[in-house]
Amino acid sequence: MSRSKSRLSIIPLGGVGEIGKNMTLYWYGQDMIVVDAGLKFPDEDMLGIDIVIPDITFLVENREKIRGIFLTHGHEDHIGGLPYVLREINVPVYGTRLTLGLVENKLREAGVHDVKLVTMDGKSRVQLGQFAVSPFYVNHSIPDTVGFAIETPEGIVIHTGDYKFDQTPIDGRHADIHKLAQWGARGVLALVGDSTNAERPGYTPSEMTVGIRIDEIISQAPGRVILSTFASNIHRLQLMIRAAERHGRKVAIVGRSMVNNVQTSLQLGYLEAQPDTLIDPDEVNKLPPEKVVILSTGSQGEPMSALTRMARAAHRKIEIVPGDTVVLASSPIPGNEKFVARTIDQLFRAGAHVIYRGVHASGHGSQEELKWMLQLVRPKYFLPVHGEFRMQRIHADLALQLGIQPDHIFITEIGDVVEFEDGRARLGGKVPAGSVMIDGLGVGDVGNIVLRDRKLLSQDGILVVVVTLSKTTGHILSGPDIISRGFVYVRESEALLDEANRLVESTLSKLVSDNVSEWSSLKTAVRDTLGRYLYEQTRRRPMILPIIMEA
Amino acid sequence: MSRSKSRLSIIPLGGVGEIGKNMTLYWYGQDMIVVDAGLKFPDEDMLGIDIVIPDITFLVENREKIRGIFLTHGHEDHIGGLPYVLREINVPVYGTRLTLGLVENKLREAGVHDVKLVTMDGKSRVQLGQFAVSPFYVNHSIPDTVGFAIETPEGIVIHTGDYKFDQTPIDGRHADIHKLAQWGARGVLALVGDSTNAERPGYTPSEMTVGIRIDEIISQAPGRVILSTFASNIHRLQLMIRAAERHGRKVAIVGRSMVNNVQTSLQLGYLEAQPDTLIDPDEVNKLPPEKVVILSTGSQGEPMSALTRMARAAHRKIEIVPGDTVVLASSPIPGNEKFVARTIDQLFRAGAHVIYRGVHASGHGSQEELKWMLQLVRPKYFLPVHGEFRMQRIHADLALQLGIQPDHIFITEIGDVVEFEDGRARLGGKVPAGSVMIDGLGVGDVGNIVLRDRKLLSQDGILVVVVTLSKTTGHILSGPDIISRGFVYVRESEALLDEANRLVESTLSKLVSDNVSEWSSLKTAVRDTLGRYLYEQTRRRPMILPIIMEA
Repeated sequence: MSRSKSRLSIIPLGGVGEIGKNMTLYWYGQDMIVVDAGLKFPDEDMLGIDIVIPDITFLVENREKIRGIFLTHGHEDHIGGLPYVLREINVPVYGTRLTLGLVENKLREAGVHDVKLVTMDGKSRVQLGQFAVSPFYVNHSIPDTVGFAIETPEGIVIHTGDYKFDQTPIDGRHADIHKLAQWGARGVLALVGDSTNAERPGYTPSEMTVGIRIDEIISQAPGRVILSTFASNIHRLQLMIRAAERHGRKVAIVGRSMVNNVQTSLQLGYLEAQPDTLIDPDEVNKLPPEKVVILSTGSQGEPMSALTRMARAAHRKIEIVPGDTVVLASSPIPGNEKFVARTIDQLFRAGAHVIYRGVHASGHGSQEELKWMLQLVRPKYFLPVHGEFRMQRIHADLALQLGIQPDHIFITEIGDVVEFEDGRARLGGKVPAGSVMIDGLGVGDVGNIVLRDRKLLSQDGILVVVVTLSKTTGHILSGPDIISRGFVYVRESEALLDEANRLVESTLSKLVSDNVSEWSSLKTAVRDTLGRYLYEQTRRRPMILPIIMEA
Repeated sequence: MSRSKSRLSIIPLGGVGEIGKNMTLYWYGQDMIVVDAGLKFPDEDMLGIDIVIPDITFLVENREKIRGIFLTHGHEDHIGGLPYVLREINVPVYGTRLTLGLVENKLREAGVHDVKLVTMDGKSRVQLGQFAVSPFYVNHSIPDTVGFAIETPEGIVIHTGDYKFDQTPIDGRHADIHKLAQWGARGVLALVGDSTNAERPGYTPSEMTVGIRIDEIISQAPGRVILSTFASNIHRLQLMIRAAERHGRKVAIVGRSMVNNVQTSLQLGYLEAQPDTLIDPDEVNKLPPEKVVILSTGSQGEPMSALTRMARAAHRKIEIVPGDTVVLASSPIPGNEKFVARTIDQLFRAGAHVIYRGVHASGHGSQEELKWMLQLVRPKYFLPVHGEFRMQRIHADLALQLGIQPDHIFITEIGDVVEFEDGRARLGGKVPAGSVMIDGLGVGDVGNIVLRDRKLLSQDGILVVVVTLSKTTGHILSGPDIISRGFVYVRESEALLDEANRLVESTLSKLVSDNVSEWSSLKTAVRDTLGRYLYEQTRRRPMILPIIMEA
């Protein structure tokens, strides 16, 4: 894209029309800054894919303009894509202390070195080219979460990141509503706002309500209490540790990600425990049950998590037994419902008292909080982001209710360019944007054809048909041999496979004696004949892979 | 199983420890009756499987004892396995008129003929051998739903089937609480009760509350109203038709299963519409939008359903346009959440006003209704069925609260035999029971090995390695050739595959020159070498299928 004169462009590269892989590009003249670099987990039709990150072709093309990456907080959907981005574009990364602590671990594990990490706090103001970026604190389900006020020659943009307004925050740090109000009073060009909970009426409850419930559960439990939640929800872990201490219990941490997060948070001072509170999981069985609290991963029913293994008696150190109280302090992420249900069933079967509802508060603001943000900031323009289309649409409707003009609201898709020039905004063109699938070490080497093949293979399996033809006469030297995988239970389907073999043989023999020798014709004939026969017999359509050898 | 003297056995063959494929066997001496023969939809790890039915090995072994199959209602999880069962065991089938109407369609489509269908109503009492079976009406999300009072020489068993107590039922037919109370007063040996909603406190709202909301929506809609719900929820379709008539609108039905169910229900008198209410979908576009209601399938977000196609503008006759009001009168079945969300997004994108929450009432009773049932029937013994383990457990806890003795409650798994003799019950042995997976025409020919292969294939694809060896010298005549599917995008991974080829060739050449000639050793070497190399390079583990030919 060439441009006649300088203007501000806001370009969502991820996190619109979807939940996850949040990334937004801000561009003015020769300067670009990026906010967040998240990942998302694959849809159910992305078979074998581990994670999905934004397509950063446009960033790579413009790498000399990029001045820095700003991170709002340490969740995977905001920082998970960072190692992949930094391998292509090594620019400084700005974030709060806890966020960068988590990023450091992540980059170390990924083997990405020599990255300049710059710590910000609520008083920072970072000038990079034509941009000046000031973080402001918000409440969220991980400490040290910020949004950004981005000063540009066109005006101030407020980028909220994920947020809620919690009037009784666990760490005592309220959202910077005074700053937001001051910017609002000065005049804000645009608000780029989190839409995750736009479907929910009312207010999101304070994390403190979860604390009260956890305290109640621990005070009433006759034996051990196993508390499971997201490993990154340090606030909630703090509530759990405090409640355990109040009731004279020791706390053991199980599950790799939770152990890591607790360590980092303790080191950086985001989590507090009395010196003798935390114990090794080995010590759990030496204490009376009513003196023990266990914090565990697995609240999403992950089949290999500590909680699921404890329930199945497959954990090395701890087993769920009758008398245990198990709490799933979470709500299932869409798509995980069946896994969570299965874990709950396993816990019930193990004899535990299981509490799996009502011990959770979302980290995202509901409709009344979104209205507060809109009202505090009073933006001229509004971009609802971080959400699937319906959430963006409903968030836009809230803005309409508050008096923002319909043509001042932009419901974007990834790659859309919203341009601001002389105080006016319009939808510009599009830049390259999309999803990059990561499978093992492969970044982007799995595309639609590979996925289509995996889908086919997963449904009805594969039949490989091998035949060797004579180099000299063109006649069949050996085969056809049919090998199947994932199609039928071979021992019970011998007749079917024998008949399939005969069919392929007669088809090929006829073609060969008719002097048809192009391999593509032979392969097509095998595929068609065999495919038709198998569909008639079984109503299945396995992949058929004819292989012709010459000897 | 041999037995010294006659006793009553209750044997759940499906529907315990799971939602779906409900089937219960009652056995006394030389007589057996079966209640329900349902299917369930495959779990997400049953790749390529269409449906799952109970393993009926034990029924087939005892086919000469089976006197009949009794159906509680016409939902797939109670009648969907019937064609498969009747192919093995042709016995009379008993049910209410609507249930048998739906069964007739199903058997015709499945090509199952010569089945004796016997219609029952609230006054019936069918004596078969030592059993006398009397249906009693209950409320549920399909009309003509019954439970059964089963008189046996050991006493009366109340088998509830799916139920709720609706004080304002749409068809005016209340649950037969007086009969239940009379049996309760006489003395009931055992209650076999639906646990589906045992997790929900309170009462399930009346279907009438859904009617009020639908009426309100139609009265306020400026244009067309598209109402989507389960095709079998005839009560709700009745509410929708009545509301349309009240507001002077015509009604078009779209979606094959809804058209079929509406036809059957109209014919049998379970659904009423004024003569000119129903119109052909072709006529929709000739009417003013405010005169139209469309009833559609697709409330579960099924990708090929009428609703999803209308939203994508891929329906032959009707397209969703701005001004339309679309109502999803349902709640997502666990596992369908993402599909439903995708459909809602498509509807929003098409510009519709979408109402997708709060227009639904469950067909299953909540905790207070389960207590009413327990209290009316006052059973000596209790078997919570129709539910996953946690639901059975919670249902059992409700029974404990109402004073049923702990050792009088049996939380069964499929195949468990609960024996009643001289008024006392105990858990007997187990009979063969399980799941039979149906894939296309194949019944039970897909087992764990096939599923494991499909899983492997779906994750990282397959590499086929073909090599032809000389019959005489044992040396490589042609190949090795590597063909991959679902592994990597071949064009971008030529170097990887070339190196893989070289590796296989050198491995084989070395073995052959070392006079190793057992094919199994050669194959293992190819699998190991190639597998290790590919994992190092890609962190993927595709299936590797070595094929050795001789010529």
